[in-house]
Amino acid sequence: MAENILVIGGGPAGLHAAIELAELGVNVSLVERDTFFGGNPKKFKYKYLFPDLQPAENVIGELIKGAESNNNIKKYLSANIESFKEDGKKFSAVIKSSTGSETKTFDSVIVATGFEHFDPAKDSKYSYQLFDDVIDIKDLERMMGEGNFTRPSNGKPPKNVAIILCVGSRDRHVGNQYCSRVCCTVSVKQAIELKEHFPETEVYIFYMDIRTYGFYEDLYWKAMEEHDVQIVKGRVAEITSGPDNTVICKGEDTLLRGPFEIPFDMVVLASGMEGGPQSPEMADKLGIELDEHGFLKQANVTLSPFKSNKDGIFLAGACTGPKAIADAIVEGGAAAMDAYIYAKKNS
Amino acid sequence: MAENILVIGGGPAGLHAAIELAELGVNVSLVERDTFFGGNPKKFKYKYLFPDLQPAENVIGELIKGAESNNNIKKYLSANIESFKEDGKKFSAVIKSSTGSETKTFDSVIVATGFEHFDPAKDSKYSYQLFDDVIDIKDLERMMGEGNFTRPSNGKPPKNVAIILCVGSRDRHVGNQYCSRVCCTVSVKQAIELKEHFPETEVYIFYMDIRTYGFYEDLYWKAMEEHDVQIVKGRVAEITSGPDNTVICKGEDTLLRGPFEIPFDMVVLASGMEGGPQSPEMADKLGIELDEHGFLKQANVTLSPFKSNKDGIFLAGACTGPKAIADAIVEGGAAAMDAYIYAKKNS
Repeated sequence: MAENILVIGGGPAGLHAAIELAELGVNVSLVERDTFFGGNPKKFKYKYLFPDLQPAENVIGELIKGAESNNNIKKYLSANIESFKEDGKKFSAVIKSSTGSETKTFDSVIVATGFEHFDPAKDSKYSYQLFDDVIDIKDLERMMGEGNFTRPSNGKPPKNVAIILCVGSRDRHVGNQYCSRVCCTVSVKQAIELKEHFPETEVYIFYMDIRTYGFYEDLYWKAMEEHDVQIVKGRVAEITSGPDNTVICKGEDTLLRGPFEIPFDMVVLASGMEGGPQSPEMADKLGIELDEHGFLKQANVTLSPFKSNKDGIFLAGACTGPKAIADAIVEGGAAAMDAYIYAKKNS
Repeated sequence: MAENILVIGGGPAGLHAAIELAELGVNVSLVERDTFFGGNPKKFKYKYLFPDLQPAENVIGELIKGAESNNNIKKYLSANIESFKEDGKKFSAVIKSSTGSETKTFDSVIVATGFEHFDPAKDSKYSYQLFDDVIDIKDLERMMGEGNFTRPSNGKPPKNVAIILCVGSRDRHVGNQYCSRVCCTVSVKQAIELKEHFPETEVYIFYMDIRTYGFYEDLYWKAMEEHDVQIVKGRVAEITSGPDNTVICKGEDTLLRGPFEIPFDMVVLASGMEGGPQSPEMADKLGIELDEHGFLKQANVTLSPFKSNKDGIFLAGACTGPKAIADAIVEGGAAAMDAYIYAKKNS
């Protein structure tokens, strides 16, 4: 008899896990709260992915197609887990979707509920939502995904753009001490895309540390050498309105050791990643733990980052912390493997 | 009939992959070139792991025990793949070990051959091997693993220690443009361990960017706030001998915009990670590709980082690029899942 495995979350990690399990003949129930699969990359219309600038469709599109075409995956959209309980070594869940409620028994569970972007409106110094031309990393990603590279205020090409890193990350004032891992590389990628579209536009990146780790470094070199992106070590302390429909970034250049005050046509805030309200909700519902950063807690951060503290419940993707899509997919595979082994043993 | 899967490399990634497959009843052949399992963490006697400073034994010891106690894993030490060829959808390999040569047929293959540390002697400015008190990241890890925190030259506690990041990384002069991902966090961890052992010792870290990405950031805060580690943005350009059996680090403080010349009792070079000679050897033997950095090439860096360009041959761990032990283990799981699916379909 085939195993039954529940996958909660239809982003990159959950999709990959579901497809892998379905390939082994497992009956997978894939539960997604949104009206579509693909997670944040789909929601914010990612068009090109770092580090190789390949079309997001190659990755996200493939995963969605793979899940949609697989009959071993029962797909639930606009759905959630209404209730959940342990049942010996198995789990019983009520899945509620637009078509009603269904009670099912599962041999194991994978949680892949992802992340939320930090809301930059929470930090007033950035004047997000106050000025049309102050947008954030996901707004720009969506705009560029729709082929729009112009200023929100007037639809014209920006003469200059400031990209501000670590918005809502590495910042105790907003409660997020951790680094969000991918914003540096995403921002460098966005700077390159802006320069490719408007070569005359000046693009500045204000950073604390540029964390284009591993091979992402290639993109950093490319931004500086091929596209003349200005990478400035400095913190922006305030954004105010400027003359001629500009916004002024005030701050300090840490290397030049002096204050700056520069009018920009457009400012992009590299908002970090948070566990989102779904993390405590999942922890509560499934009886698993949260970590001190508001993400789901891994059984052992090195030996078993894909396990929760509860036997039979596995974790994958950004629900355990900020990470790149590649890392989320890999974790989806590792969690699927363990969830399958667990199901085999107990079914 | 059980599937047969070959795992090449007995470090964290290979061990985890082998154990997971064996749990599913697969006949695993685990081939390790060294005389022991555990890879570089075992070779250099890692004692505590970042980011939570848990004993390495919790992770590496567990994996070794798991593989050694599993009868579905045929273990080959001091062994290598003498020859390899495709055989329809299967693979035929000759495994050579101290007990002789064996020819076996496999349904799929996982390559997890790991990395080598950059040899700092290749960059003469660091005077590695010229002065006893200039050591590198793996030397210090091994020393601390053996409970030794003192100066190599005289066995006394160091009054001050310099840790120099990006040795052999982010450096085109030595041919490695990429960042090695983990050296920042390992170095911050080592600084904390030094300070815990000798609270009076002054520890400096010279960096370009501190890349304690994600939750590794917690360790960076800890080093600064709890242990008063001095974190200095600056490049060391030369190491020479100094008075009173010291070594002098000369360089420029990028933030203070001035040169420095400081005598240290001990200097630790944070040597990066390289693909090592085993990567081109494996690529050649298995007919898979190398990337431009000298690591094994992933089929798709985002969608399938655990696949080679050849069907049935999968990749895991640092053989595809610098990464943390956690990431290597997760990739071991993801590669195992795919190798199992491939074997199931074709066996």
